Amino acid sequence: MEQFKGNAIVGQSGGPTAAINATLAGVIRGALSCREIGTLYGALHGVEGMLAGTVCDLSALFHEEEKLSALEKTPAAALGSCRMRLPDPNDDSPEGKAVYERLFSFFRSRDIRYFFYIGGNDSMDTVAKLSVYAGKCGYAMRIMGVPKTIDNDVMGTDHTPGFGSAAKYIAVSVSEILRDCAVYTVKAVTVVEIMGRDAGWLTAAAALPRVNGVGPDLIYLPERVFDYEQFFADVTEALKRHPSVVVAVSEGLRLADGRYVGEASQSGVSDVFGHKYLAGTGKALENAVKERIGCKVRSVELNILQRCASHVASATDIAESVEVGKAAVSAAVSGLTGKMMTIRRVSDSPYQTEPGWEDIEKIANRVKTVPDRFINERGNGITDEGVSYLLPLIRGESYPAYRDGLPVQVIIK
Amino acid sequence: MEQFKGNAIVGQSGGPTAAINATLAGVIRGALSCREIGTLYGALHGVEGMLAGTVCDLSALFHEEEKLSALEKTPAAALGSCRMRLPDPNDDSPEGKAVYERLFSFFRSRDIRYFFYIGGNDSMDTVAKLSVYAGKCGYAMRIMGVPKTIDNDVMGTDHTPGFGSAAKYIAVSVSEILRDCAVYTVKAVTVVEIMGRDAGWLTAAAALPRVNGVGPDLIYLPERVFDYEQFFADVTEALKRHPSVVVAVSEGLRLADGRYVGEASQSGVSDVFGHKYLAGTGKALENAVKERIGCKVRSVELNILQRCASHVASATDIAESVEVGKAAVSAAVSGLTGKMMTIRRVSDSPYQTEPGWEDIEKIANRVKTVPDRFINERGNGITDEGVSYLLPLIRGESYPAYRDGLPVQVIIK
Repeated sequence: MEQFKGNAIVGQSGGPTAAINATLAGVIRGALSCREIGTLYGALHGVEGMLAGTVCDLSALFHEEEKLSALEKTPAAALGSCRMRLPDPNDDSPEGKAVYERLFSFFRSRDIRYFFYIGGNDSMDTVAKLSVYAGKCGYAMRIMGVPKTIDNDVMGTDHTPGFGSAAKYIAVSVSEILRDCAVYTVKAVTVVEIMGRDAGWLTAAAALPRVNGVGPDLIYLPERVFDYEQFFADVTEALKRHPSVVVAVSEGLRLADGRYVGEASQSGVSDVFGHKYLAGTGKALENAVKERIGCKVRSVELNILQRCASHVASATDIAESVEVGKAAVSAAVSGLTGKMMTIRRVSDSPYQTEPGWEDIEKIANRVKTVPDRFINERGNGITDEGVSYLLPLIRGESYPAYRDGLPVQVIIK
Repeated sequence: MEQFKGNAIVGQSGGPTAAINATLAGVIRGALSCREIGTLYGALHGVEGMLAGTVCDLSALFHEEEKLSALEKTPAAALGSCRMRLPDPNDDSPEGKAVYERLFSFFRSRDIRYFFYIGGNDSMDTVAKLSVYAGKCGYAMRIMGVPKTIDNDVMGTDHTPGFGSAAKYIAVSVSEILRDCAVYTVKAVTVVEIMGRDAGWLTAAAALPRVNGVGPDLIYLPERVFDYEQFFADVTEALKRHPSVVVAVSEGLRLADGRYVGEASQSGVSDVFGHKYLAGTGKALENAVKERIGCKVRSVELNILQRCASHVASATDIAESVEVGKAAVSAAVSGLTGKMMTIRRVSDSPYQTEPGWEDIEKIANRVKTVPDRFINERGNGITDEGVSYLLPLIRGESYPAYRDGLPVQVIIK
């Protein structure tokens, strides 16, 4: 096989996860151990850094095993992130062309022949566009996307790196919230709001504590239309069974008319500054329960810790995230380009996966939602099949090293 | 020494913590290993359970080391909790007397001669009142309080069991939030709201990540009057230094006129049901920054996970919580009564503590706030002395055992 030699660049894009640096570490490990790649550059803040020429030399920064291992357990994007969307590569307007010309002149100037981009759906769009432009301008380059998103909503892969750790944080936190809520004898409802605008994967993970005996009473995903009357009936029924009712809801719940639950509940309400007050879905449901059922109620928003809690990441997720990063390098070196790396589940029992890839155009800008068979008939819980899919993804505990009681993190400046 | 023999009862009261079951495990260990105590009963839901006669036999339930060790790492009150306040023991009204008569007739019927109550300030009030009544009615009983509260606001002890684990969760979470917030280049403010109505101990723990290099930019405690103009000036100044500003605030911040920050910001605002909408302090400050500074801003409420996150508890806290539970048993057996157990810091370097005790009447119903020397002059940060006090309390990681990726918890029914 003919060798394709040159330097490489890697960037991170989109929202942080607890595993995006594990994939970065995988790419670094892969690049350091292959002869085809000279220097591996890290682009600071994704394509923004490539446009600005702000890069670092990862080959020099990470030759110590200890540092690479700490990087794997550092949350959020160590290289920094961006949310930049590239113009249409077929658009021949001067502005559009200028962006690509700048990018490719930067690649040429550093002899960058390998491009790795770790990100979510939007980032795969960047990979797809760069692939098209590279073909158009005849610059020989291997361009690979590596997915990461806590949302698990990327097509073509059994699950996304980063999802398992977020799911684990949610499952562990919900199991603790369940203990916390069980201590009093007063009737009380606790609404836990979980991330996920369009797909309910993360909220589904709230079902997992039931494997240990006790799970939330009710779980509502954005895959189903949310109906207040059904919700009140469900909660009332649950309150008959025991005093403390825990409900997990996705931030993306919508009513039959398409409005978000949070949105609908704030109509006409504004704060002291006259601004429309946008509360979350959990807060809206908290107020609704207070009004309609009248018992003690509170809402808990798991918030950004869902995506950056490296202190209790899934060992399965971190290991797979490293592997898929390494595999992206091997795949590119072996000749692939314009692909997104995937995780293929080759066996359920024992759980076993292997890295794969898909054509990027089949993936970019599409969303994978939770399938019907994972959601119960009444739309207020997760089926055993759903639990079986999710459970292996949170297995094993990945802990960072600690110094002085605080997690050791890698900061790239 | 004359032996004082009989059965014992232990109850838990007040809000959950990650360490209250560690103290319970300590009391069980102490009781199991001493000849003076026959059966150790557990009162379900504190004094409520003693009044209702709903107790369990802890001596029988916990003879396996594995189960005791799992109990130490199970969050929230395994025996259930209550918030009941006993009447004045000197009040001779029929209702008041009836409560005590019922309690003591229950104690007599089971020959309960040792009473251990694990709880916060309100629970020490229960211990004080029972001591008075026992003296009055001439029932020989040794009555001991063991403090637990995440708030660390109990007098007479260097710190409270439960505080270190909550502080660790906060320090670890804030260090992860700092990483999460650092990934973008856009100017953004993140307000982290931390528990503590009257004392800022938990919010002060947000300062700890700076030991690792990077801490929050600003920290505001309820020990200082909150001033919006100073806050805006502080944030504006911080935004000049770097794009991502992280601010830790206590839920209990008050304005010069005594109103809570959250309270003040909602005047006149109500939700669709016409209810006054009570947002948190973080949300109020988020809205204020949006209005006045105009940059991207969000708020994160750490919420109840602060008090129940056993998945990353402080090993120091858990060990001390067990010890103080054991020591309460020894102290009672040796003849003490009407005392609250304390933790005495006997050395700073190396950090070393030992269990002690204080007269309950010196402690009940008083609040210990963060001293001036721990707060910087401008009232927007924690001094090195404050950090030195806090840091040893979060040292070491206490992890629960996991099964199928989920924490093993002990549930007493």
